[in-house]
Amino acid sequence: MNAPQAHWPTVAIVGVGLIGGSIGLALKARKLADRVIGVGRSAGSLAEARRLGAIDEAAADLDTAVAAADLVVVATGVSSIPALLERIDAAVRPGTLLTDAGSTKAGIVAAWEKGRRGRGGTGGGRRGRFVGGHPVAGSHRRGPAAAEPRLFEGRVAIVTPASATPRADTEAIGRFWASLGATVHTMPPREHDRILAMTSHAPHVLAAAIAAATPAAARRFTAGGWRDTTRIAAGDPELWADILLDNAAPVATALERIATLTSRFRAALESGDRRRLVSLLTRAKEDRDAVGS
Amino acid sequence: MNAPQAHWPTVAIVGVGLIGGSIGLALKARKLADRVIGVGRSAGSLAEARRLGAIDEAAADLDTAVAAADLVVVATGVSSIPALLERIDAAVRPGTLLTDAGSTKAGIVAAWEKGRRGRGGTGGGRRGRFVGGHPVAGSHRRGPAAAEPRLFEGRVAIVTPASATPRADTEAIGRFWASLGATVHTMPPREHDRILAMTSHAPHVLAAAIAAATPAAARRFTAGGWRDTTRIAAGDPELWADILLDNAAPVATALERIATLTSRFRAALESGDRRRLVSLLTRAKEDRDAVGS
Repeated sequence: MNAPQAHWPTVAIVGVGLIGGSIGLALKARKLADRVIGVGRSAGSLAEARRLGAIDEAAADLDTAVAAADLVVVATGVSSIPALLERIDAAVRPGTLLTDAGSTKAGIVAAWEKGRRGRGGTGGGRRGRFVGGHPVAGSHRRGPAAAEPRLFEGRVAIVTPASATPRADTEAIGRFWASLGATVHTMPPREHDRILAMTSHAPHVLAAAIAAATPAAARRFTAGGWRDTTRIAAGDPELWADILLDNAAPVATALERIATLTSRFRAALESGDRRRLVSLLTRAKEDRDAVGS
Repeated sequence: MNAPQAHWPTVAIVGVGLIGGSIGLALKARKLADRVIGVGRSAGSLAEARRLGAIDEAAADLDTAVAAADLVVVATGVSSIPALLERIDAAVRPGTLLTDAGSTKAGIVAAWEKGRRGRGGTGGGRRGRFVGGHPVAGSHRRGPAAAEPRLFEGRVAIVTPASATPRADTEAIGRFWASLGATVHTMPPREHDRILAMTSHAPHVLAAAIAAATPAAARRFTAGGWRDTTRIAAGDPELWADILLDNAAPVATALERIATLTSRFRAALESGDRRRLVSLLTRAKEDRDAVGS
């Protein structure tokens, strides 16, 4: 896509943690916005984000901040996003672009669409133009101190329009994520959630299960394998509980797929079938090697 | 432990891959041996190990090489170690110290002990003095090119004497691994295998299962979490099949423990019990944080 260079006079970022902070840093580094306003519950995080140059100013009030914005990005935990979008939509100027960076999409998009339909007409029930987004670039780290201006470079961002979303809005939000350096893919919210259940949410559960299953006395005998395999389990429990609960059925399906594969390894192991075990490990290695380091 | 400085005039390393090559580099860097002889099936690996300075000379013949050694280290895949130890024992000078770096220990130690008892008397059936070892420092990389002189620094090495192993032999092999920079722990072979099933072998199976369960079309939507969780699945399938098969029952037990934990996550997820899910994730985070990055 040879998109025209994107530029937004004023961007409001709601939630200035790892993702929100990185968005701010990238907007400034790439000169994509004249003014970046940060909004957040924590005065400490806002002050830190400002000190790090991720935002130009810390807003005292959400409504005032988003009323001044041409683009509003919600980068908070998934459970707070639907209510925040409601409040933001009531405060923005008509036609303002909105997106989010939540790790789940179906529930968030459905909540927005419900409000749009509820007040009649295409978009008639909304002031803003929301298209959900998800930069697939998280980590177990959090907070503005972990933010990086290049976090999205070479990464994928998924944009998840509803069936009724105007194409121009989807393209505008796609341009936003592309402008931060991400490769943009567009897909329905439910497809996003099915895929992420397999590539992120179910692996998180297994990483946590391995960490919790390891007796304290065995911990000193861990090396790179255990440390890599369990690293994401250090993520924030509250944030992850909300992600998992918001995507419960697809996560259960993904865990079932992994359990089926695991039982094949166990069967080969218990019957001493070396040929089968090598074949299973070889397939897994090929699948892993296809992704890169 | 304030061990006296260790030194061996001649060390033979059988298998000059990641581990054997790193042992050679560490011996040379720390001036722990006058002469390091490399033995291996692959002329290419031997030549590379020599070029990299991991060995002083590449042996044309195993028997001659080990006959010249004061210490022999077997750093090959676990399935080949028992037979190699037999052959080495027939060729070494009486009293030569032998150790290995295999990822499993019970089978290897039992095979050695069987030969020792078989020919009567304490140690009477053997020329060499073998004590099993395992530097817990592997990775998904392999070959002499991946070797590093500091691979063992700050890592744990486990030394696994049999019940009949003379204490002096256990201490001598402990000094060897400590001299490479490792912190040495001594435990029975079966305890080693139970612990490593949980800290290394079962996580390997799950990493492979996650990699293989992920559809090819979903791979581009992976980020740090999936990549970390599955990284070890890129390991060598033949080497890992032998490790898993040699430790099948403990690995099955460890997989069962992880499955039990996973089912708790699933139950909390399916009943929408956020409090329980946060509690499980918090315990896992605390367990993971206890290990460090």
